[in-house]
Amino acid sequence: MTHTEFYRGRRVMITGGLGFIGSNLAHRLASLGADILLVDSLIPDYGGNLFNVSGIEDRIRINVADVRQASTMNYLVRDREVIFNLAGQVSHIDSMRDPHTDLDINCRSQLTILEACRRHNPHVKVVYASTRQIYGRPDMLPVTERHLVRPTDVNGINKAAGEYYHLVYNNVFGVRACSLRLTNVYGPRQLLRHNRQGFIAWFIRLALEDREIPVFGDGSQVRDFVYVDDAVDAFLRAGATDALNGEALNVGGSEHMAHRDLVQLLIEVAGTGRYRFVDWPAEKKAIDIGSFYADSSKFSHAVGWTPEVKLREGLTRTLAYYRANMRHYLDDPDTAEAAR
Amino acid sequence: MTHTEFYRGRRVMITGGLGFIGSNLAHRLASLGADILLVDSLIPDYGGNLFNVSGIEDRIRINVADVRQASTMNYLVRDREVIFNLAGQVSHIDSMRDPHTDLDINCRSQLTILEACRRHNPHVKVVYASTRQIYGRPDMLPVTERHLVRPTDVNGINKAAGEYYHLVYNNVFGVRACSLRLTNVYGPRQLLRHNRQGFIAWFIRLALEDREIPVFGDGSQVRDFVYVDDAVDAFLRAGATDALNGEALNVGGSEHMAHRDLVQLLIEVAGTGRYRFVDWPAEKKAIDIGSFYADSSKFSHAVGWTPEVKLREGLTRTLAYYRANMRHYLDDPDTAEAAR
Repeated sequence: MTHTEFYRGRRVMITGGLGFIGSNLAHRLASLGADILLVDSLIPDYGGNLFNVSGIEDRIRINVADVRQASTMNYLVRDREVIFNLAGQVSHIDSMRDPHTDLDINCRSQLTILEACRRHNPHVKVVYASTRQIYGRPDMLPVTERHLVRPTDVNGINKAAGEYYHLVYNNVFGVRACSLRLTNVYGPRQLLRHNRQGFIAWFIRLALEDREIPVFGDGSQVRDFVYVDDAVDAFLRAGATDALNGEALNVGGSEHMAHRDLVQLLIEVAGTGRYRFVDWPAEKKAIDIGSFYADSSKFSHAVGWTPEVKLREGLTRTLAYYRANMRHYLDDPDTAEAAR
Repeated sequence: MTHTEFYRGRRVMITGGLGFIGSNLAHRLASLGADILLVDSLIPDYGGNLFNVSGIEDRIRINVADVRQASTMNYLVRDREVIFNLAGQVSHIDSMRDPHTDLDINCRSQLTILEACRRHNPHVKVVYASTRQIYGRPDMLPVTERHLVRPTDVNGINKAAGEYYHLVYNNVFGVRACSLRLTNVYGPRQLLRHNRQGFIAWFIRLALEDREIPVFGDGSQVRDFVYVDDAVDAFLRAGATDALNGEALNVGGSEHMAHRDLVQLLIEVAGTGRYRFVDWPAEKKAIDIGSFYADSSKFSHAVGWTPEVKLREGLTRTLAYYRANMRHYLDDPDTAEAAR
């Protein structure tokens, strides 16, 4: 049975299922014939968007709920076979302004989900969406899983704790779990309304609106990028195997690139937009990690994953998606303020 | 100015100040002429004990408060120059039974304390009591600070997060902080009422009561031990320097020893007690870390610290203390149940 056949009729849950990666995963799982339950809080500003599941509404169930709510999670996990655990607060800047909320969403909620599994569905498989942010500023590149966890911000700390909980629940309570440390994922269905959830989507919006893209410093900081379809494939492979239980693995892109080069490529592909170098904002500089790209060979070898979509192709698809659907990503009362 | 002269008239706060290490630190600081505020929740079972400050009552102030309480902490931190941040839930077993409470005490409270400092006393120095538990099961011995953080239980995860918060608040908000990763600290004033806060104090109680000490497995697991006066000296040195800001450092003992050898030494020194090898309890085995001892050379080199008290001497002093004061460590309504 291939990792895609595995999902035919499979009872899956996606937390954060109306968000960026979650909804792309839902589209793929719908095409594979899975039994799909999406759980999402639809908290404004956090990325959940009903339009993200446009076209598959009749093949999914949506349950609006906050993953911090224990009684709800105790009920929802009961009959699920695989949980893709993607709910989270992803803004680094927000975590430094309001660390307690980040703690609630990225730590407390993970314990709540895992306790629900331990008590009510101990045979479930859980795949957790972690982040390269937990490494902090790298000692060397590319970064492997042997690199110290040394976050530079509260969000990175709480995501690290969320990951560790999964591994401990795997090792101690037998709730099978693994964690994928994602680098910069981009593609359709990402939040564009404000610039606090990573820079790529925001740059894409500015390019599409033919505005000026601010590149911090000299733009030399390097990142690797994963097109969302490749990230979705990584989740599917991780959920279909027991070979990764108790492991945390890098999932990064095959290409890495300096910010300034990414921006130039984006503008070239879009045919609109321009850029300018600007000074680092102090609150971003204080938590910046410098250059980063990941070595994903451990994950690739374990499950046969390779990122398929090159950056130019991924940007092309992403721009086309937003050109067709932009209004669904802006029609929010906060837009005017957020876009300032 | 030596690190002890530094504390004359110095306004210090000790969270968890009525607990084991906190109260020993208070005794030392009282002898050095510091202005001492102890904050302790006196939550039953957590180690706070008013008898621990017997003899220095007129040289300290005690404020009973829960460090999770933001408004209280906002007030209490205001005029302090050094905070020794020792409040915590230390039971690994409890953290696996009730992970949310451990999260509250070991993560939420740390954010609350650090936010209080950031907003109301950003020039304070904070020394955080971390633990070797954050490393989990070692890849090699001795364990240096380059070893991966990979906790085996929820308590270890939350303590790691608590440590990381301190380092981030140092690096981003300028709240000077460092973290000491303590191994097995033992000595006078440790909780003896139950066996969920580490094994040494419990073994000491059993030896003193001439009871049988259960040694798990074949007793071959190795630990290093720090006499509490040496741990106190480590805190004093860390609090008096800015050389460690943003750092996390091991503080371990100069001697390491297998459990079975420790128990034999203890029984020899006490002249009472006996031991027996027993099977590992399942819930302890699941989170056990195997053998562990720390390389503390980084800390030693940085501040000139060396552990002075050998294990035989430390056990002798500890036994003498409890022989004289045992009733103050047992007079609790829960004793009968806890001692079963």
